[in-house]
Amino acid sequence: MSRTHTYLINGDLTQIISPLDRGFAYGDGVFRTMVVRGGLPVDWPLHYQKLVADCAAIGIVCPSAELLMSDFLQLFSIEDIDSNQLEVAKIIITRGEGERGYKPPAVTSPTRVVIKTAISKFPPEYNTTGVHLHLCETRLAMQAKLAGVKHLNRLENVLARMEWRDEDIFDGLMLDQQSNVIECTMSNVFARFDNVFITPDLSQCGVAGVTRQRIMGLASVVNLTVEIAPLSLSRLLHADEIIICNSLYGALQVTKIGDVIWPPQALANTFRNLLSHK
Amino acid sequence: MSRTHTYLINGDLTQIISPLDRGFAYGDGVFRTMVVRGGLPVDWPLHYQKLVADCAAIGIVCPSAELLMSDFLQLFSIEDIDSNQLEVAKIIITRGEGERGYKPPAVTSPTRVVIKTAISKFPPEYNTTGVHLHLCETRLAMQAKLAGVKHLNRLENVLARMEWRDEDIFDGLMLDQQSNVIECTMSNVFARFDNVFITPDLSQCGVAGVTRQRIMGLASVVNLTVEIAPLSLSRLLHADEIIICNSLYGALQVTKIGDVIWPPQALANTFRNLLSHK
Repeated sequence: MSRTHTYLINGDLTQIISPLDRGFAYGDGVFRTMVVRGGLPVDWPLHYQKLVADCAAIGIVCPSAELLMSDFLQLFSIEDIDSNQLEVAKIIITRGEGERGYKPPAVTSPTRVVIKTAISKFPPEYNTTGVHLHLCETRLAMQAKLAGVKHLNRLENVLARMEWRDEDIFDGLMLDQQSNVIECTMSNVFARFDNVFITPDLSQCGVAGVTRQRIMGLASVVNLTVEIAPLSLSRLLHADEIIICNSLYGALQVTKIGDVIWPPQALANTFRNLLSHK
Repeated sequence: MSRTHTYLINGDLTQIISPLDRGFAYGDGVFRTMVVRGGLPVDWPLHYQKLVADCAAIGIVCPSAELLMSDFLQLFSIEDIDSNQLEVAKIIITRGEGERGYKPPAVTSPTRVVIKTAISKFPPEYNTTGVHLHLCETRLAMQAKLAGVKHLNRLENVLARMEWRDEDIFDGLMLDQQSNVIECTMSNVFARFDNVFITPDLSQCGVAGVTRQRIMGLASVVNLTVEIAPLSLSRLLHADEIIICNSLYGALQVTKIGDVIWPPQALANTFRNLLSHK
C-alpha cells in the first residue's frame, strides 16, 4: 500500500511514527489536504494560514512555512510549472510524542508529516451531470471548542462514509443533532436561493475549509450575496441549486439527494473556473 | 522518551506505524489501559470483552484473545506470580492502513499495538485524604454512536486535561452540554446518596470503563443500590460521598471539587479492597 505514497516525517524519509505519538494515541493533531501543481501547493497561503489557526485552536505551535516548504521541495519535483503535473499533498501536524495520559508533556515537539499521493480521479461527467449525495444517518456532535477545525478526531466522518457503498454516490450529507445541514463527509456545502448563497454556520461542528472560504470571497463576482446561517435539511431541499466544494475537486453541483433531484446548471462550472480548477 | 516504553506492533518489536494508518489519520480505532501483575493482565476477560465490544461499535474485527495473549507473553516476563510485580499495558487496535479518504479499504487488516510501561505512582495519602477535582470548562459533545466507547478520538479529554497545572488536582470533572456530570478525564464517577449509588448515564457521551462495571457489580456487597441515571452537577455537589475509579488506581474518594469539600470516609477503601487494588 505504501508504494503509492511517499512521505516525510519531520523532514526525514526514514523517520517513523511512534505509537506514543499523541496523533496516534488521541488524534491530538490537525491536517490539510491540497493539490500540488508542478511541485508547488496550490493556494498555499490560505492552507498555511488555516493550518496555523487549527494548530492554535488545540494549543499546538505550527511548524514554520519554511520547514513545510522545504519538505515540499524534497518530496515533489519542481517540474516546469507549465507542465501542470497534478499531485496531492496531505500535511499532518500532531502534538508529538508523549507519556501515557492525556496531559501533554511540559515541552512538546510537534510531529510534522507530509504525504505525497496521486491526484484523485473524478469522473469528468460529474462536471456536467452533477453528483449525488447520500443523506447520512450519522449526525455531527456539537462541540464549539473544536468546530471548524480540521483535527484528527474524524470517527464521525468515518462512520458516515461507511454508510454507503453505491459508487454512484459522491459524498454524504451530514446534519447536526438539530437536523441542520452542516457539511458533507469531505466537502463544504452552499445552497443558492435566487441570488442569496447560504453556507451553514460552523460554530458548533463541521470543518471550515479553504475552498469554502475562497468561494465566499468569489461569490460577489457572480452577483451572489453570501450568508452564513443555520440551514435546515428541509430548507436545503428547496434550494434552487446546491454546490459542494473541497480543495481537490473545486466545486460540483449536487443534482440528487435521496429522491430529490435538481437539473444541471452552470454555477459550479463558473466556480471551478474562478477557482482555476480544470 | 521511548526508553521508558517497549511495544509490539502486530506482535513484532521492529514493525512501525505508518502515517497512513487510520489510527493516526483519523483516530480510527480503540484502546484499553490495564494493570499487569506478574506478567499477566488483571481482569483480562472484562478488558478483552470491552475491547471486542468497542471494536464492534466502529466496525473493526478485534484480533483474537490468543494473539493478544501471545503479545503479553512476548512483552512481559512471566515472573513468579507471587512477585506481584506491577506494570501497565496499553492495547491499541486500529482499522489498519488505508488510502487517503474516509472510506475504509474493502479489505482491512487491523493494526494491533501493545505498549508496556511502568505503573503510575499515585501518592499513598490519596487513599486516606481523598483527591481533588478541577471542574472542566471543556464539555463533552453528545454522540450516541460513539458514547461509552474508548475510541481514539480523545481531543476533548486532552483539552480538558490542559485546563489545569496544579499538581494537587488529581483529575478533571467533565459535564455534557446540558450540565450533566458524565465522567472525569481519566475516570468514571459514582455519587452516593444514603444507600443509593448513582453513576451517570453514558448513552450520549463518556467512556464506560471496566472498573465502573466491576463496581456496579460489587455495590450490593456493601448494601448499595446502583442507579444509572442523569446526574446534574448541582445534585452531585450534594452527594454524601463521591467515588471515582479507573483500572490503574481502582477507586478513590473525591474530597474537594472547587470550593465544596467532603470529609474522608471509608467507602473508596472498601472498594479498593473488593477490587483487590492494594
